[in-house]
Amino acid sequence: MSRFWSPLVHKLTPYVPGEQPKMTDLIKLNTNESPYGPSPRALEAIRAADNDTLRLYPDPEALALRKALGARIGLGPEYVFVGNGSDEVLAHAFQAFFAHGEPLLFPDVTYSFYKVYCGLYSLPFRNVPLTDDMQVNVADYAGPCSGVVVANPNAPTGIALDLADVRKLLELQPNRVVLIDEAYVDFGAESAVSLIKEYPNLLVVQTFSKSRALAGLRVGFAFGQPELIEGLVRIKDSFNSYPLDRLAQVGATAAVEDEAWLATSVQKVMASRTVLTEGLQKLGFDVLPSKANFVYTRHPNRNAAELATQLRERAIIVRHLRGERTAAWLRITVGTDQQCETLLSALRDILCSNSL
Amino acid sequence: MSRFWSPLVHKLTPYVPGEQPKMTDLIKLNTNESPYGPSPRALEAIRAADNDTLRLYPDPEALALRKALGARIGLGPEYVFVGNGSDEVLAHAFQAFFAHGEPLLFPDVTYSFYKVYCGLYSLPFRNVPLTDDMQVNVADYAGPCSGVVVANPNAPTGIALDLADVRKLLELQPNRVVLIDEAYVDFGAESAVSLIKEYPNLLVVQTFSKSRALAGLRVGFAFGQPELIEGLVRIKDSFNSYPLDRLAQVGATAAVEDEAWLATSVQKVMASRTVLTEGLQKLGFDVLPSKANFVYTRHPNRNAAELATQLRERAIIVRHLRGERTAAWLRITVGTDQQCETLLSALRDILCSNSL
Repeated sequence: MSRFWSPLVHKLTPYVPGEQPKMTDLIKLNTNESPYGPSPRALEAIRAADNDTLRLYPDPEALALRKALGARIGLGPEYVFVGNGSDEVLAHAFQAFFAHGEPLLFPDVTYSFYKVYCGLYSLPFRNVPLTDDMQVNVADYAGPCSGVVVANPNAPTGIALDLADVRKLLELQPNRVVLIDEAYVDFGAESAVSLIKEYPNLLVVQTFSKSRALAGLRVGFAFGQPELIEGLVRIKDSFNSYPLDRLAQVGATAAVEDEAWLATSVQKVMASRTVLTEGLQKLGFDVLPSKANFVYTRHPNRNAAELATQLRERAIIVRHLRGERTAAWLRITVGTDQQCETLLSALRDILCSNSL
Repeated sequence: MSRFWSPLVHKLTPYVPGEQPKMTDLIKLNTNESPYGPSPRALEAIRAADNDTLRLYPDPEALALRKALGARIGLGPEYVFVGNGSDEVLAHAFQAFFAHGEPLLFPDVTYSFYKVYCGLYSLPFRNVPLTDDMQVNVADYAGPCSGVVVANPNAPTGIALDLADVRKLLELQPNRVVLIDEAYVDFGAESAVSLIKEYPNLLVVQTFSKSRALAGLRVGFAFGQPELIEGLVRIKDSFNSYPLDRLAQVGATAAVEDEAWLATSVQKVMASRTVLTEGLQKLGFDVLPSKANFVYTRHPNRNAAELATQLRERAIIVRHLRGERTAAWLRITVGTDQQCETLLSALRDILCSNSL
């Protein structure tokens, strides 16, 4: 608390990111990073740009990157917005589209940054409960609102909506922006980008941090009709002209162009997800059907917070979220097959020793 | 205009950055970049981090960088905030400290992003006129306000306040944050960082984009007492947990540690500034006394906008700002001696051919 702070600052409840431990010998399954490195072409492009041209500002419009992203799905750069991680893209979108007086709608169990943005921009919101089996029921998103935000697949559940349900959302709220946060979409869900031309109220947000294995580079992006992109640009150009540095721009552009790397990397993660899911089930865990690079799991008679602590003692970190509907669950990133096996062994040990 | 936009978005007048031309054969003296590359140690540190660890999120607290920045001036990391360019740091500061109902005070001729932030956060502001000789008169910053922002040296004038005047500002407004924007301070002005321990209302903002020659890496920072830093952190953690990517963190840290490089680079720019100033004066230009890496200059009987256009035709870009008090002036970045000489020759030609 401080007399110098704006009143808003006293009221904020900031987001708490997953731990980024300084130790390197941990098995880190807590923040949904890729277990594999990024495309070698991205690393090479960064190396080639690591020179005296860093004295110059980057392209404020990141045109080459926006063209590359649009070209993948047959859209021009005027349909593409980029930012310093999808968190920045989301922040700008909340400010640009969701201040209409009515509450913004999003699930009660979802990415916990959404309510933080509402705090930052003083936006009223209403948490729409997931069903008992942790699903988004799109019919619940009708009625007056400032907009709708749904993560697809949802986090931390990993459960995906199909495209027909996304269409229903868009048609329930034709006068409000429906933001589909597709941070994890490449791991087996259906992207809504195919609907961009059809729905002027659709904004799709994606990231390089998960399937592209570039969490350390901070690049996120959004697809939408030019009217929505212009709204985001107006906010961005009132905040920071150059959100993406020169290295991030060239690295991300090279990553987009390496489709083969993406396909291989995603396939490996999806195969490991199956192994991990089956292994957990054998140990008696419930596992939600995940289309993401993590699984959401609980044990019918074990305390999740204690399990997380016991795994930590064995140098494995997973994510446990407090809250009425999440306290019983663990969110576990899909690692390499070897990491998944080590995790399963550790859980087996913990379950056995607890039973003694 | 769009029915989907928040009402605020319709009212914004975004900042327009200086041109970043795609052509590489121009002499670019329009955005105050360094004419020299950054510290080789920064480039080396980036190269060493350009590997598979980019799959991992960066340190959300950028602790190594904050420690390095604080150590330079004898302060711990709790006195240091870092962001994605000083523009992001400024944006967060405006939101964190200046929403108290009264107008924010800043000069009528200064960095034009300040009024844009006021638009973004709906902050009332009052432009305090510079004196006739384009100086900040600190006594004009008394009275009820939400805070004070002064660039020192000021941009686009290049004129610096001395530390006694900064003290006066701080003492005129003991209950409000006084933000001193020191983007250009390394080129000969006195930094207010020595006053941090003494004044709880002082926030000093600096950048790697000018003297450190890393505009392309997007790193800015602020010094203040921990109470102010905490206010900034609360905003940052409600906006984007990881604003600085891994490459920016290691590159900037290495750059901070290369004091010798900084001293040499800054000395060269200051020497060229003298040559450029004298050359312009010989051609009949008025030149304000600059402590920055640019000069602000006008010709008593030439139209500045036309001069800028004529220079552009000769592949030299300088910055011309519209507005009642700035339209007669050109802001010219100090380039290499060779670039300054080419500029002076071009101006000599233009002045001669215009006289025919």
